[in-house]
Amino acid sequence: MTLEQIRSPHDLKKLDIAELSSLSEEIRTFLIEKISETGGHLASNLGVVELTIALHKVYDSSKDKIIWDVGHQAYIHKILTGRHNQFDALRQLDGLSGFPKSRESIHDAFDVGHSSTAISVALGFCAARDIIKDNYGVCAVVGDGSMTGGLVYEALNNAGRASSDMLVILNDNQMSIAKNVGAVSRHLNDIRTAPIYREAKKDVQKFLGNIPHLGKRMEKLIETAKDAVKFILVPGVIFEEMGFQYFGPIDGHNLKDLIRTLEKLRTIKGPVFLHVVTKKGKGYPPAEQYPNAFHGVESFFIDTGKPKNASNGDTYTSVFGQTMLKLAKKVDKLAAITAAMPDGTGLAPFQKAYPDRFYDVGIAESHAVTFAAGLAKGGVIPVVSIYSSFLQRAYDQILHDICIQNLHVILAIDRAGLVGADGETHQGLFDYSFLAHMPNMTIMAPKNQHELVDMLTYAVCIHKGPIALRYPRGSAGKTPEDHRMPIKYGRSETIVKGKDIAIVSVGTMIDASLFAVNELQSLGYNPSLYNARFVKPMDEYLLDHLLSYRYIFILEDNVQTGGYGECLWAKMAVSGKSLSLLPCVHFFAFPDKFIEQGTQKELFCRYKLDGEGVLKRMLQILDKKSQSLKN
Amino acid sequence: MTLEQIRSPHDLKKLDIAELSSLSEEIRTFLIEKISETGGHLASNLGVVELTIALHKVYDSSKDKIIWDVGHQAYIHKILTGRHNQFDALRQLDGLSGFPKSRESIHDAFDVGHSSTAISVALGFCAARDIIKDNYGVCAVVGDGSMTGGLVYEALNNAGRASSDMLVILNDNQMSIAKNVGAVSRHLNDIRTAPIYREAKKDVQKFLGNIPHLGKRMEKLIETAKDAVKFILVPGVIFEEMGFQYFGPIDGHNLKDLIRTLEKLRTIKGPVFLHVVTKKGKGYPPAEQYPNAFHGVESFFIDTGKPKNASNGDTYTSVFGQTMLKLAKKVDKLAAITAAMPDGTGLAPFQKAYPDRFYDVGIAESHAVTFAAGLAKGGVIPVVSIYSSFLQRAYDQILHDICIQNLHVILAIDRAGLVGADGETHQGLFDYSFLAHMPNMTIMAPKNQHELVDMLTYAVCIHKGPIALRYPRGSAGKTPEDHRMPIKYGRSETIVKGKDIAIVSVGTMIDASLFAVNELQSLGYNPSLYNARFVKPMDEYLLDHLLSYRYIFILEDNVQTGGYGECLWAKMAVSGKSLSLLPCVHFFAFPDKFIEQGTQKELFCRYKLDGEGVLKRMLQILDKKSQSLKN
Repeated sequence: MTLEQIRSPHDLKKLDIAELSSLSEEIRTFLIEKISETGGHLASNLGVVELTIALHKVYDSSKDKIIWDVGHQAYIHKILTGRHNQFDALRQLDGLSGFPKSRESIHDAFDVGHSSTAISVALGFCAARDIIKDNYGVCAVVGDGSMTGGLVYEALNNAGRASSDMLVILNDNQMSIAKNVGAVSRHLNDIRTAPIYREAKKDVQKFLGNIPHLGKRMEKLIETAKDAVKFILVPGVIFEEMGFQYFGPIDGHNLKDLIRTLEKLRTIKGPVFLHVVTKKGKGYPPAEQYPNAFHGVESFFIDTGKPKNASNGDTYTSVFGQTMLKLAKKVDKLAAITAAMPDGTGLAPFQKAYPDRFYDVGIAESHAVTFAAGLAKGGVIPVVSIYSSFLQRAYDQILHDICIQNLHVILAIDRAGLVGADGETHQGLFDYSFLAHMPNMTIMAPKNQHELVDMLTYAVCIHKGPIALRYPRGSAGKTPEDHRMPIKYGRSETIVKGKDIAIVSVGTMIDASLFAVNELQSLGYNPSLYNARFVKPMDEYLLDHLLSYRYIFILEDNVQTGGYGECLWAKMAVSGKSLSLLPCVHFFAFPDKFIEQGTQKELFCRYKLDGEGVLKRMLQILDKKSQSLKN
Repeated sequence: MTLEQIRSPHDLKKLDIAELSSLSEEIRTFLIEKISETGGHLASNLGVVELTIALHKVYDSSKDKIIWDVGHQAYIHKILTGRHNQFDALRQLDGLSGFPKSRESIHDAFDVGHSSTAISVALGFCAARDIIKDNYGVCAVVGDGSMTGGLVYEALNNAGRASSDMLVILNDNQMSIAKNVGAVSRHLNDIRTAPIYREAKKDVQKFLGNIPHLGKRMEKLIETAKDAVKFILVPGVIFEEMGFQYFGPIDGHNLKDLIRTLEKLRTIKGPVFLHVVTKKGKGYPPAEQYPNAFHGVESFFIDTGKPKNASNGDTYTSVFGQTMLKLAKKVDKLAAITAAMPDGTGLAPFQKAYPDRFYDVGIAESHAVTFAAGLAKGGVIPVVSIYSSFLQRAYDQILHDICIQNLHVILAIDRAGLVGADGETHQGLFDYSFLAHMPNMTIMAPKNQHELVDMLTYAVCIHKGPIALRYPRGSAGKTPEDHRMPIKYGRSETIVKGKDIAIVSVGTMIDASLFAVNELQSLGYNPSLYNARFVKPMDEYLLDHLLSYRYIFILEDNVQTGGYGECLWAKMAVSGKSLSLLPCVHFFAFPDKFIEQGTQKELFCRYKLDGEGVLKRMLQILDKKSQSLKN
């Protein structure tokens, strides 16, 4: 049977181990071919081919709930559940999502994207099953990286206590979990899954009870040991302590073992924890060798593994990283913090050069921020670099642990605005809205890479207090260094001076804004262009200026609600001017919906926030009065 | 030496155990007397008298960092650091804070209020100390309740790895932590703190290496056991696994043991974990008997423990709880979730009546929300009741795990708006701002207890999708049942129909609004009064109506930025009306700062958001044109 013939997971049920093995090879070839064209998460999916097949052999995902933590490793699940024909459009506009999406298939039990949620969700399904008196299976598949997130612990703590039937699979590709969990012989699993285990346990207890006199001290020890006997047997002691029955580790590429173990575990009552060891990138040598590089890839040549599109110059991320290096040389007290993203945030060179001032806290954004607060209180200047959508996890910590004490912590918010192919769960479109209402917070947005350098330098060397700067994913282009006036606190900059029409641009919306200005000028209008620079505080001078215009167009790559534009407009309302003098304001921002996947270019176009789009809308607004506004 | 003579912790250094014991009794008497007058956190403070004295005997808090998790147990710390004269104004407007505040004293290392932050902060101090090459001690004191929060786990995971010198004290008053951690003999501590420990460990290893032949199976077990030998010795195995050296449990009321142990532990390198067992309410029988009731108390009679001010009728919390009970009878699939607050949220009767549909997840707000998402996806209707400021911890989970899939989860947000004596860290003044920009979210605010009943019923029985309702702390009063028109999605209600001036009131701002309306009417004005009911979505009909007014006054007990008023004003801007017709809008909301402690009444007054305050400001605004606006 070939991949083409697998229409649903039901088709797997009749295959034997040899056929499933052959299928797994076919899936690997398919994945490598498809992802080499579209890009996507390759290494993590190559690692779970057998595990996914085994899960679908044992579970019925049309009824049972398989919850993939993070979800970027669910490609094989998608292939096996009738979506392999859609892989040409993987992660593309209106194409197949790179993450589980319940709107795509009944086999996708829950939409995910951020790490460490799966056990909480699984526990929710278990509780619902018990209330509704249904009887489906519930299985959460969690990568070892996700185990550093506090949410996993909150969930384990509750799951162990709840005693519902559920299976948590730790997909351990040895990328990040503490080595003590991974350093145990697979033989122990045989002892534990076989009935012999219970007897063995009794033997040990008996043995410990019958040991000869060892003196008072040893006696006490042994007394404790009797209660602690399970620790002798159980490598996954943390999980046992949490109330789970721990099994493993087993080889995540041995289909026979996987299927046999999963079948056995389905018969066990209560919360069960299965530790599976997999190899990230398995079966594709370049990915096995460089699993990090092949975690999320652009299109590449299969024979070499080299990317098809050579990198074209600096990204905002690399500019940030290089600037951090330079600043660290000057500023002894500068420290950098990442949440499991030393490469993604551009901090890898800093890590190498200043290991004593660099902290990778794992996928633990809340801790990253509170830890930074402690560092700041201790006299260090911490820069916390986190992607915009992940920073959402530290909302309370930013508000409480940084802002209340007005601590000098710099939030370097990468992947702000549109992120592209990762879609809804990764768009960085909310940060202005969730930061702007925090007292003591300052928010900056650089219009280009030079301003990023200047703003970061300003944030580290001059400002005192909580300060965020946010910049997008991708190329920083080759912007000339003009318009590089020094950063002044809370002040915008004037790029073009005109009249009647004011365009206020935030951050990298400058490109669309400049396009619109040029076109408007060529049509005879005379617009002004301001670069906001500071989202918070509002520039009082700019507010004064703006009141003299008839039209104000505010451009930002954030949701409109609670964003820069609405804050500015609210300030204008209370600026004390007579109401009839208020200009007509129009917000150019993202609407009140989750923004789907697609390239940044495609999505800016779809939401009319590219140059053409904003120009067209501006002209529609201006149309009625166009003659009076032209020179 | 008496309490009066303790000017700073330095004065403790010269006291012997007998004198310290006598001091601790004096402190207990002082606490009971003072808190019986002012109210405050009694039981938790009575539990840490000896621990705090011991800490100040061993550490120098003017230099060393003692970080109190949550912080409501820091009263004794405040007494010993020169603030005992300020206890008459504890938790009162402009008085002594009930939490550590670095602006009050150099002895308060870090401001806290929310749970589970202390180890992250401590680790930050350690890292700063290492970077700056200072040499102070760092100690985090964490209650067992806080151990359920994921942030603690993220911090432990990092602290164990960091190998910095730090002490984490688990103040275990056996209120919530899993019993396996608490169920260990104190004698073991002697073995571990004494040098004998290392020898004992060696003995056991040798012993296990020399056991006679036990068959293949036992041999394997014993082989594993050799690596696992520490589990025989160590009750705090989770903490050991995290990289800490665990000591304890010891008696938290034995000053001699505490001081001796703390002194020994200061000499140990790396992260150290000390498990201290205390009794909540220690020394005051009513509090020992009902530690929950004496966690946070109002003023009470010392001899009986009975509150001085008898409860005066329903609170919003109790109305919520009673309504949940009624709804659960009708709706089989209704479930309730609390994060360690069954009493505080009014869910205790629900818990009793429907234990199978009730979940107390511990101090784990992120998990509470994602768990609810799983329940909803499984067909149950979950109501998550969390205090507004604690819900901040679940921002990402609300946005991602509930809103993206548009799941029917009800957020019952208690303690919204002003909370009073707990101050900055507990005010619920940000929820409109952090929820309003979430796609798919609906937000309601009841004007009184009847509307709370109607809205909760609407949210559970009629609405589908994410929906929040928020209501304040305290008495719901005795509002008559008029103006009880059925809830219609997204629609406000008209309370008073006038012209020229529109007052839009959100939630319980209705009282101040009604006061202003009456006064304005008596002065000859003719204001309209609208009750917003829905903060999101905006009422399109209301928007249309409002455009016909000259003045709009919007009242909400939320920060202005990103709140209801600004959203409404932004909608009006883009409503398509000609600009000169826009009314003059004024926001009556909290300013962009953290709001201090004080009674709700005092703070509404101070921020001019009580009836008198809003009236005065309205009259100032109307003054210039008053004649033309009067009938």
